[in-house]
This record gives sequence, C-alpha cells and structure tokens, in this order.
Amino acid sequence: MQALEQKILNEGIVLSDHVLKVDSFLNHQIDPVLMQQIGQEFAQRFKDCGITKIITIEASGIAPAVMAGLILGVPVIFARKNTSLTLKNDLYQAKVYSFTKQIESTITISNKYLKENDKVLVIDDFLANGQAALGLANLVGQANAEVVGIGIVIEKSFQTGRQLLLDQGYRVESLARLESLNDGKVTFVAAE
Amino acid sequence: MQALEQKILNEGIVLSDHVLKVDSFLNHQIDPVLMQQIGQEFAQRFKDCGITKIITIEASGIAPAVMAGLILGVPVIFARKNTSLTLKNDLYQAKVYSFTKQIESTITISNKYLKENDKVLVIDDFLANGQAALGLANLVGQANAEVVGIGIVIEKSFQTGRQLLLDQGYRVESLARLESLNDGKVTFVAAE
Repeated sequence: MQALEQKILNEGIVLSDHVLKVDSFLNHQIDPVLMQQIGQEFAQRFKDCGITKIITIEASGIAPAVMAGLILGVPVIFARKNTSLTLKNDLYQAKVYSFTKQIESTITISNKYLKENDKVLVIDDFLANGQAALGLANLVGQANAEVVGIGIVIEKSFQTGRQLLLDQGYRVESLARLESLNDGKVTFVAAE
Repeated sequence: MQALEQKILNEGIVLSDHVLKVDSFLNHQIDPVLMQQIGQEFAQRFKDCGITKIITIEASGIAPAVMAGLILGVPVIFARKNTSLTLKNDLYQAKVYSFTKQIESTITISNKYLKENDKVLVIDDFLANGQAALGLANLVGQANAEVVGIGIVIEKSFQTGRQLLLDQGYRVESLARLESLNDGKVTFVAAE
C-alpha cells in the first residue's frame, strides 16, 4: 500500500535491526486520514469473505480496525491486555508471549460478542513473531467462530510470524512488508 | 445526542448506582457507525475553535477521538497508561487517580507531538470525577499548549467531574449526560 510505505519512509524511525518506531502516525500519534485509507484497503482485500466481526488488540490496533469496521459495516472487538472493572465473567483468554518485550501477557475478550457462526477478521498493527495474531485467533477458536483472514498494517517480513500463520492455514494480508531494517534503512518486500 | 442515548437505553447495563457497562458498543465491542456519529457531533460542537490536535487516553478514547480527528482534519494523540518500548525519552507525564478502581496511574505522552501553539481538544469516553480529563489537560499544559475544550462521550452528571472542570475554566461538551443510575435505571439530564 503505497501511501503507507511512503509514510513509513518519511516518518518511521529505525531504532535497531528489528524495531521500527512509527509513533508519529500509528502507535502514539494517529493519522486519521491514513487510518481511513488503511481501513479501505483492508475492506477491499476482504470484501468477499462475508466478515461479520473484526477482532483486534488494544491499543494500536483499534484505529485501523474501527476504520475497517466502518467500511465493512461490522462491529469491532478489542481484546484487553488487562481485565477491566466491567470485564470479569464469561471470558475467553489466551496467553501471548512478546519476544520484543520478553514478557507473557494474557489477552481477554468477553464471550458475549463472538458466536460460532461469526466470520472474523483479525487486525493488528504489527506482525513480527505472530504471537499476538495467534492469540487473537485462539480467542476466535474458543468461540468456535471462524478466522477468515488476518490483516496486518506493518509486517516485519524478516521475522517468522507470517510463515507461522500461513503454516496454520490462515490468509495473511499485510499492507506494508518490511524486508529489512538493517543499517538504519527501511526496505520493503518487492511487490509480487 | 439522541442516537447515543438510545444506544445506552437499549444496551447499557447498570451494574450499580455509579457504574454503567457499555461494553457492547464503546468499551470492549465498538460500534463503528456510532463512533462516526459521535465524531461528527464533537466536530460540529468544536468546529469554530481552531483545533490543531486531539488528545485522548488508551484504550476506549481512541475510537471516538480518531473519528473526530478524521472529520476535523487533525491528528490524534493517545496518552499511554504504560510506557512502551518506543516511548521512553522526552515525556510529559501526569498522575491520574481513579476513584472507581482506587488506583493511581501515570499517563504519558511524548513531547514531540504537542507544541505551544497547539489548540487541543481533549476527548474521553467517560467523565466521572474528572481526574483523567484533568490529567490530559495537565499534559497539554506541560507543552504550553491550550486546551480549547473537553469532549466526553458519557458524563456521570451525578459525580463531581463536570463541575470541577468548569471551575477550572474548561468548556465541557458531553454527548450523553447521566442524571442517575439509581434503582438499575438510566435517566438522562433533561435537555437545556
């Protein structure tokens, strides 16, 4: 997705060979117009899948997921990393290990909002080792609902997540695919 | 805002005299169409204020804030409750006490995204005791930027937050104002 790649080139900051900081438009400050374009792109790619729900994870997944939900006309559920005051009973939970932060966390959704006939699009901001996406897919599985695809804003294609998800049979659509962050420079996977 | 009040009446669950659960459209599952309407309403009410930035707090503030930002044509910054891997230096921070959860947390933004000529709209999902909104306003103040208004999705008008914010000179626009949650029943403040 060209507008996203251009934004990454213009504003992304390479912190190391495996960390790209995009705090100016996605992870801290949010560019609503770009989020709308991202939502349109996800909606376009998955429009024929009969999607009934989108699931994402707080906090950075929410903006792209809500824009996609608006265009696809479906509700969005965001999994919580901490249970809230009003989210206590009848939960689906999955453990997610972050290689980047080296911590394991538990993500949670209420069982009220996913049903077994739901066709679910999983959306997340980054794909690296695939653990967050797998955790979200696990929650969908607990509801006996179907994951029809995984939509990623920025994929670190030099890490193992994409292949892991493909190996499990998931369709993965990433809007920007980073081939490398070596030497402080962003390069993208060449278009197919 | 009638669509919001109707949604609260249809789907809100009164957990106690001071807790309303709106997990079906705002705090866990999100209704993107309603968020768009909420964004339009905030944009309408603040359209003549010369807003240059919106600030909110993760996670439930993000959806309404991004929709308002899209319509007003300005970026959105979400304050983090925990600092992230890429959010470490040059921070503005404020302590926020939650009477509901009885815990104090620290909210954080990078100093890169607020400048002293910014005119800032603060958006949050709930207004109860006003501590989160005051914390966000505090962050804006640290940047020597100006808070031009505070936009709230659901105000608990039976708590002290609104008056606290008005006493400090802030303009407060709440899209739904709860007069009471007594006896398991939602009543709204009568329109002026």
